Amino acid sequence: MAELGVDALLLSLGADLPWLTGYEAMPLERLTMLVLPADGAATLVVPALEAPRVAEDRSVFSLRPWSETEDPVAIVAGLVGRRRLLAVSDRTWASFVLALQDRLPGTAWRPSSEVTATLRAVKDEAEIAALRRAASAADRVAAQLMAGDVPLVGRSEAEVSADLGGRLRAEGHQRVNFAIVGSGPNSASPHHEPGPRRIRAGEAVVCDFGGAFDGYCSDITRTVFTGAPPAEFAELYTVLQRAQATAVAAATAGTACEAVDLAARRIIDEAGFGPHFIHRTGHGIGLEEHEHPYLVSGNAEPLVAGNAFSVEPGIYVDGRWGARIEDIVVATGSGPEALNTVSHDLAVVHG
Amino acid sequence: MAELGVDALLLSLGADLPWLTGYEAMPLERLTMLVLPADGAATLVVPALEAPRVAEDRSVFSLRPWSETEDPVAIVAGLVGRRRLLAVSDRTWASFVLALQDRLPGTAWRPSSEVTATLRAVKDEAEIAALRRAASAADRVAAQLMAGDVPLVGRSEAEVSADLGGRLRAEGHQRVNFAIVGSGPNSASPHHEPGPRRIRAGEAVVCDFGGAFDGYCSDITRTVFTGAPPAEFAELYTVLQRAQATAVAAATAGTACEAVDLAARRIIDEAGFGPHFIHRTGHGIGLEEHEHPYLVSGNAEPLVAGNAFSVEPGIYVDGRWGARIEDIVVATGSGPEALNTVSHDLAVVHG
Repeated sequence: MAELGVDALLLSLGADLPWLTGYEAMPLERLTMLVLPADGAATLVVPALEAPRVAEDRSVFSLRPWSETEDPVAIVAGLVGRRRLLAVSDRTWASFVLALQDRLPGTAWRPSSEVTATLRAVKDEAEIAALRRAASAADRVAAQLMAGDVPLVGRSEAEVSADLGGRLRAEGHQRVNFAIVGSGPNSASPHHEPGPRRIRAGEAVVCDFGGAFDGYCSDITRTVFTGAPPAEFAELYTVLQRAQATAVAAATAGTACEAVDLAARRIIDEAGFGPHFIHRTGHGIGLEEHEHPYLVSGNAEPLVAGNAFSVEPGIYVDGRWGARIEDIVVATGSGPEALNTVSHDLAVVHG
Repeated sequence: MAELGVDALLLSLGADLPWLTGYEAMPLERLTMLVLPADGAATLVVPALEAPRVAEDRSVFSLRPWSETEDPVAIVAGLVGRRRLLAVSDRTWASFVLALQDRLPGTAWRPSSEVTATLRAVKDEAEIAALRRAASAADRVAAQLMAGDVPLVGRSEAEVSADLGGRLRAEGHQRVNFAIVGSGPNSASPHHEPGPRRIRAGEAVVCDFGGAFDGYCSDITRTVFTGAPPAEFAELYTVLQRAQATAVAAATAGTACEAVDLAARRIIDEAGFGPHFIHRTGHGIGLEEHEHPYLVSGNAEPLVAGNAFSVEPGIYVDGRWGARIEDIVVATGSGPEALNTVSHDLAVVHG
C-alpha cells in the first residue's frame, strides 16, 4: 500500500477479505466491507444479522455491525475519512462503489488486486499443501471417470455433471464450483453448459471440474472417448498431450507467463490446429478458481516460485469434437511440480 | 431510460441481463457486458469461448465476441462512444467499473437498478406462475421436514442442510441457493452457517432454504422443535406466528412497504420481544433471491399489484433459541396471495 500510495483498502466480495481475515463476505445487497487504512486500525462493517458468524479478533480488526435502518455506505465513508486513494475489492458490487464515490467526492479508486494480486499469487507452504489436497481429491474423481466408473453413454451431460459434482464432495470438497461436461459436438465449446443432450457411443467427452477443498480450489480437465477413437481424433489428442506436457515443463520460475502459453501454442500451431486453440493456456488458482498469474499472450511477467496455475491447452473443431487436458502446476525453486498426477492418456471408456 | 436521462445501459452480472435477453453472464474475470444505448442497437460483448453458449437474436442484440488478446474494456468504451450517463448492472465487478471509468473520462455512472428495479419488481402472470411453481416445490420440502421425514436428531446441521438441498433438487429446483439450518443456540443467529454441530432432542431448529426453479427463486423458512417445546418457546412462537400472519394480511397493493414491516414489528414489540427482531420483515424476490421491493423501515414506497416478496419476521434470543416463519407473498388487485401454503404451526418432530 505504501509503495502504491494507497491510503485504504476497502474489501468486500472476493478472496482478499478471507485471505486476510478468514471471513468471507456474503454476496448480498447488505454491504460487508473491511476498511483497512494504511495508517490505522481495521474495521469490518458487517450487517448485524451476519455478525454472529464473524470471529472477531481485535488484533486484526474490530467489528462495526450495522442494523437494518442504518446506512452502511455512510459508515464506510466515515471510516475512510479524509483518505484519498482507495483500493476496493475487484468483485465489490458496482452499486456500492458508485454509492461510495458519490459519498466521497475527490477520491481516486483502484482495484484492490493492484495491492494484493502479486502477494496472493505467491503461495506459501501451507497453501501449496492445501492446493495439493484439493488436486488429489480431483485426481481421484478423474481416475474414476477414466476407469469407466462414471456411466456416460445414455446419460445426459447434466446427469454426468451432477455425478462428478457429487464425487468431488465425496472426495472431500466442501463446494463444487463447476463441472463442465461437453459431449460430441458440444466438446468443441470450451465452456459448454451441461445440458439434456444424451451421450452416445463413439464420442469425445470433455470433463472439466473443480471446487473448494478447505478453501483452496481444484480444477482439472480430462477428455475421454466413449469407444475406440477414430485415428483423426487420436492424432489430435496426441498433439494436445504433447503441447500440454511441453507447457508444464516450460513453467519454471523466471519464465514469462506468455512463454508458457507460447510453448503449448507453438506445438498446436505446427500441427495445423492453431486456429482451434481459442483460449489462453492457463490461470492462477488459489482461494479463487481464476486469479493471477494468467498464462496469456501479452503477459510478460515472469513466474516466481510459489505461483500456482492451470496449464490447459485445448483443440476445438467446431461442430465436430474437441479435447482439453488440464493440470494444476506449481512453479518451485527446482522446476514445475504438477499437482495433478492422474494419467494424461486418452481414456477409452465403454458405457 | 428517457425519463432518467440514461444514455446507455451496461449490463453484466446479475438478473437484469437474463431478464432482458435470457442470457446470464458468467462471474468471471473475462468481461461479459451488454451495451444497450437509448438511441441505438444493443451489442453483447462476450468472451469468445462463451459465445457458443449464447443464442444470438439480432432483433434483440448482436454479438461481439472478444478473443483472449483483445481488451474488452476498450471494446465496450468504443460502443459507448460519446454517451455520457451510463447505468451499469448493480453487481458488475468493481474492477470493470473502475477500468471503464478510466477509459471514459467525463461520464457519470448510476446503478442499472435505478432503471430496472421498479420494472422488474412488477411480475407478470408468467413470472407469478413461475414463482408459484418454485414455492410449491419448496412447500413440499417443508412438508417433509415438518412431518419428520428429514432426520434431525443426531445429524449435523451441515448434513441436514445438504439433505434439504437435495430435496429441493428432487422437487424440481435446478439450483440450490442456500439451506440455512440453525439448531439450539444457533437458531438465534438468523444467517447461521450450517456447521458440524449435532442436533439434539429438545431444540429449536430454524430451516431457511431456497433455490432457482426455471430461473425464478423460492425462499421459505419453517421452525421445528425436536420434541415437545417448553411453554416459553411455544409462547414466543405464537407471537411470531401472529406477527407473520398479520404482516401477510397487511401486504395489500397501495400499502407502504414499511407499513408491512411495522405490522409485524408492532405485535412482536407489544409482546416484549422487540429487541429480538433484528432484521427487516422481507425482500422482493424473482430472478434474484433478494430484489426490490424491500419491506423495511424507511421504505415508504407503496406495494403495487404484481410485487412478489418474502414476509419473514423472526425472534432471536441470543445464546438460547430463535424462530422465524417465512412465506413468499404476491400483492394482487384482490389482496395478498401467499404462494407458500404449508402449515405455519410449530411442528414437533421426534427423531
